[in-house]
Amino acid sequence: MDLTKIKNPAFLKKLSTEELEVLAAEIRQFLIRKLSVTGGHLGANLGVVELTLALHKHFSSPTDKLLFDVGHQSYIHKILTGRTDRFDTLRQYKGLCGFPKMVESEHDVWEAGHSSTSLSAAMGMAIARDMKQEDYSVVPIIGDGALTGGMALEALNHIGHEKKNLTVILNDNEMSIAGNVGALHNALGRMRSAGKYNRVKDELELLLKKIPAVGGKIAQTAERVKDSMKYFMVPGMLFEEFGFTYFGPVDGHDFKDLEEHITYAKKTKGPVLVHVITQKGKGYQPAETDQKDKWHGVGPYKIESGEKIKPADAAPAWSQVVSDTLEREVSREDRLAVITPAMILGSKLDKFQEHYPDRLHDVGIAEQHAVTLSAGMATQGMKPFLAIYSTFLQRAYDQLVHDVCRQNLNVAFGIDRAGLVGADGETHQGVFDIAFLRHLPNMTIMMPKDENECQHMVHTALTYDDGPIALRFPRGNGLGVEMDADLHPLPIGKWEVLKEGTDGVILTFGTTIEMALEASQMLKKQGLNIEVVNARFIKPLDEPLLHDRMNKHIPIVTVEEAVLKGGFGSSVLEFAEEHGYKPQIKRMGLPDRYIEHGNVKELLAEVQLTKEQLVLEMKALLTASNDKQKRA
Amino acid sequence: MDLTKIKNPAFLKKLSTEELEVLAAEIRQFLIRKLSVTGGHLGANLGVVELTLALHKHFSSPTDKLLFDVGHQSYIHKILTGRTDRFDTLRQYKGLCGFPKMVESEHDVWEAGHSSTSLSAAMGMAIARDMKQEDYSVVPIIGDGALTGGMALEALNHIGHEKKNLTVILNDNEMSIAGNVGALHNALGRMRSAGKYNRVKDELELLLKKIPAVGGKIAQTAERVKDSMKYFMVPGMLFEEFGFTYFGPVDGHDFKDLEEHITYAKKTKGPVLVHVITQKGKGYQPAETDQKDKWHGVGPYKIESGEKIKPADAAPAWSQVVSDTLEREVSREDRLAVITPAMILGSKLDKFQEHYPDRLHDVGIAEQHAVTLSAGMATQGMKPFLAIYSTFLQRAYDQLVHDVCRQNLNVAFGIDRAGLVGADGETHQGVFDIAFLRHLPNMTIMMPKDENECQHMVHTALTYDDGPIALRFPRGNGLGVEMDADLHPLPIGKWEVLKEGTDGVILTFGTTIEMALEASQMLKKQGLNIEVVNARFIKPLDEPLLHDRMNKHIPIVTVEEAVLKGGFGSSVLEFAEEHGYKPQIKRMGLPDRYIEHGNVKELLAEVQLTKEQLVLEMKALLTASNDKQKRA
Repeated sequence: MDLTKIKNPAFLKKLSTEELEVLAAEIRQFLIRKLSVTGGHLGANLGVVELTLALHKHFSSPTDKLLFDVGHQSYIHKILTGRTDRFDTLRQYKGLCGFPKMVESEHDVWEAGHSSTSLSAAMGMAIARDMKQEDYSVVPIIGDGALTGGMALEALNHIGHEKKNLTVILNDNEMSIAGNVGALHNALGRMRSAGKYNRVKDELELLLKKIPAVGGKIAQTAERVKDSMKYFMVPGMLFEEFGFTYFGPVDGHDFKDLEEHITYAKKTKGPVLVHVITQKGKGYQPAETDQKDKWHGVGPYKIESGEKIKPADAAPAWSQVVSDTLEREVSREDRLAVITPAMILGSKLDKFQEHYPDRLHDVGIAEQHAVTLSAGMATQGMKPFLAIYSTFLQRAYDQLVHDVCRQNLNVAFGIDRAGLVGADGETHQGVFDIAFLRHLPNMTIMMPKDENECQHMVHTALTYDDGPIALRFPRGNGLGVEMDADLHPLPIGKWEVLKEGTDGVILTFGTTIEMALEASQMLKKQGLNIEVVNARFIKPLDEPLLHDRMNKHIPIVTVEEAVLKGGFGSSVLEFAEEHGYKPQIKRMGLPDRYIEHGNVKELLAEVQLTKEQLVLEMKALLTASNDKQKRA
Repeated sequence: MDLTKIKNPAFLKKLSTEELEVLAAEIRQFLIRKLSVTGGHLGANLGVVELTLALHKHFSSPTDKLLFDVGHQSYIHKILTGRTDRFDTLRQYKGLCGFPKMVESEHDVWEAGHSSTSLSAAMGMAIARDMKQEDYSVVPIIGDGALTGGMALEALNHIGHEKKNLTVILNDNEMSIAGNVGALHNALGRMRSAGKYNRVKDELELLLKKIPAVGGKIAQTAERVKDSMKYFMVPGMLFEEFGFTYFGPVDGHDFKDLEEHITYAKKTKGPVLVHVITQKGKGYQPAETDQKDKWHGVGPYKIESGEKIKPADAAPAWSQVVSDTLEREVSREDRLAVITPAMILGSKLDKFQEHYPDRLHDVGIAEQHAVTLSAGMATQGMKPFLAIYSTFLQRAYDQLVHDVCRQNLNVAFGIDRAGLVGADGETHQGVFDIAFLRHLPNMTIMMPKDENECQHMVHTALTYDDGPIALRFPRGNGLGVEMDADLHPLPIGKWEVLKEGTDGVILTFGTTIEMALEASQMLKKQGLNIEVVNARFIKPLDEPLLHDRMNKHIPIVTVEEAVLKGGFGSSVLEFAEEHGYKPQIKRMGLPDRYIEHGNVKELLAEVQLTKEQLVLEMKALLTASNDKQKRA
């Protein structure tokens, strides 16, 4: 059928299994074709084609609430809710969002980009429904990886206790973002290899009849065995123990199996968990055979071969520079251990893992645990390096406050995807970390200007023994600069003058250094000598440098690709206030709102974080400064 | 024995059961006597007297690592490690800390005040131990309540998978901080009522032999039954499923039982969980019979009667004002629901719960879940009011960023214990919330000057429909002001002039208003008219007022009982910079370090947050301002 004709999912109710299968094949082809041009989360979506169709057939969205955990697997849902024609703009500026988005459709009842939120949100909806005495289904769809996130486990505990009607769909693809970790994973494995609930239950009844009658203590035990067996001999005993009725395992690519169990689930009172086994990348051979989850999120590719179409780019990725430097440091520093919360591939730690499996600890999607585990290691003299995305470190703020910084432990943080990330949009922009780290006592924060400085910063982090230290670096590739052969530590809190100048000074770091240098060039042509300082330590500040410039009354512009409120620029304002300076100063950075998806350049232009604006701001300061001098 | 003679726990190794029992009784009497004067966490400590003695007898601290989850139950540990003579100073300024503290003793290997951190820290230590090829035991002691915290569950999942040697002591007192919630709690209940592991195992073997041989499919099932029964018929199947070897339930007040099982546990490889049943308040009748956990943390009391010795204080507690106002609002606002993460008593919601059980949702120790659950409710048009301590809201920072603020949902936050809390010390000071909330888009933050304004702010929060809104209020009691009969909403972002003045202005809110008024009085005597403004909205700022005062070039002092970095004062600096003002300005607040325990007045003096200092700062600004005017 013509997928662009679909306005809402109501038509599915009348489709036969055969018709659903045809539609599933068409959707797969559509996704493979479209994403080969735009890129996107191909693997996850190919895995849930049948599941999404079956859910939309048996539930009535938006009355019934479908909540996609993480949300990057909502493409089929978007097709079924009238957004097929927007797929050319997927993840592009002002285009279709790669995650559910309430403004796009009334069928998007919950937005997520971080994992493990759907169960809590669903429980909130179920409570609201019952308080309002309404009647609808709430259906969170959560992956096996997301289930190990602390909040999801907190929610399981609460939901299982409260006995509200709630249908959890566990989408088990044996692979969160590459591999899966933990006891729950093992338990799921046992469930998968066990038989179906219904069949086992019948067999069990038969078997129990064969236990002979016995007396005394043994009889009591036998009774308990019989009672308990009903719960624990079925494959989902773990979930039954949590208070759920378990259905499964269900073949997530078999409509008959899916529809049968969804029907069971709908009829069952109280919390239900339907355990659906899916295959990531299903129906597209290069993605199906992907063991390392490299098809999780992809850029454009050639459909025939599966070959990725990459822009020719000689410079290594920032993550790769960090990972390579960690490999170099292993031999020097035997206290080094690298921790990752399920991000081996994203943090480009796959080679590190291959070479030093004992030095790498993947804790699964469990950011809080990752931080406090690192703190525990540090108490015993180790040097843990936690590789984590800026936006996911948000999950462990209290662990930073209470466990790491308060105890002043030597934990090094490699904060990846700092700044705007582009296509993943507002849930993934790494723009808050300076504001939430800067006010923590004992914390040191740095950001490199290029990958050479980055390797020295990794070394600095690992040789620093006075407390927590964070190295933040952007998404994407470095600048292609030459790398020093030897590593050396940077003096803590010492900035670097990149370009001399006496008329004004630009204080900036990381990705915005380039625009500062260009702005300085532009101003040079207008006869102005503007200094550009690489403020590579965001905390502590280079106080001698600031004293010097503020004493000289040189106008200052601060530039950061991060939220302005409570950010780096504010720390310069605070410095000025503390020492009684009143500089001509302007802060540039991100405004007080969430920034949507689009390429970073477009987003920077939208928020006027550009060299042109920087030139304007500096000139405005200089004008004000001159006026003042004239008046004086 | 003379408890003050104890220097370290080594002497315990030689003690018989009878001698241990005598010692336990002495320790109980000591605690009951000492805490009747100083106050402290009596109930929790009386519950773990035998357990702590048994652990210190069979493990060798500090080589073996004992980690106390939450940490307020470490008093016996403190006695056994040479700190008996400091108990007169418990929780007092420069006195003995109410939680483990590394600087106090080498036996304190992990500090905590927030729950659920011990398992992650212990796993970090176990990894470190194995990487360093050392040999010692790591023994986290965690309560049943703390176990439901997301990080503890993340850790269970990781530990169970990795199979490192680790001895988890589950201290199950059927009561975290008042009652317990969730499926895990139910599972623990089943375990408690079941028999001992060892006995059950023997009986099971006997029973299994009685199952007759059968053929075909049934035989396969029978095999699986036999295999699985070994795991699941024992009471701790939930933990076995998580990969732990389970021992228990153990009578936590019976040395024989305790010592036997600790000995088993020490001999067992891999992760072990010893399930110990204790009674909070054991040995002190008023605390033993306490159903509502009112003896969790107490002030001074009369030993004989258990009567609490309270300073005569007519003013109601801030929490009570909030809770009472919520009760008033229930009838007006049928969308209102109150959420609490295991803090019914602390947040004084017990009466609310009694009167409106359907409107109150206690989710257990699960702050992340509490926030996102509230977000889910808000998506369905409810008005959730989350009652949470400032320091515990830190646990849910990402849920604020990603779920509540990003989706701009109408969740109201009642942030209790904001500012310095005193005796609980650095883990509990509520001093970061402004810095971590202020940079979140869509967030509104307010703080009342007195309990009358507080009730209006509760009403404001519940009638505000434009996104998240937070009301922060301090620990302790209000000012005893008269309460308005009718509630009215405050205009968002509008400050209140408390005292007129034209020479300078003090911008402050909440607890520091009093010192501002007093400072203003003191300055009045020196001929200076200083305005005092109740900056009750911390975000958004009262921009018209700020424009006015900055245009008039009036010196400004900001005062806040919160961290200075990224705080309210910084937002005033940001406002000035954004609009090109260069005010004479000084920010007063908390420095960039953690603040230890002591009474709030002492702590404020220590950090120079006093009226005297405020007078000095204002005069310094006025002098500078006059100098400038003379120069101009």
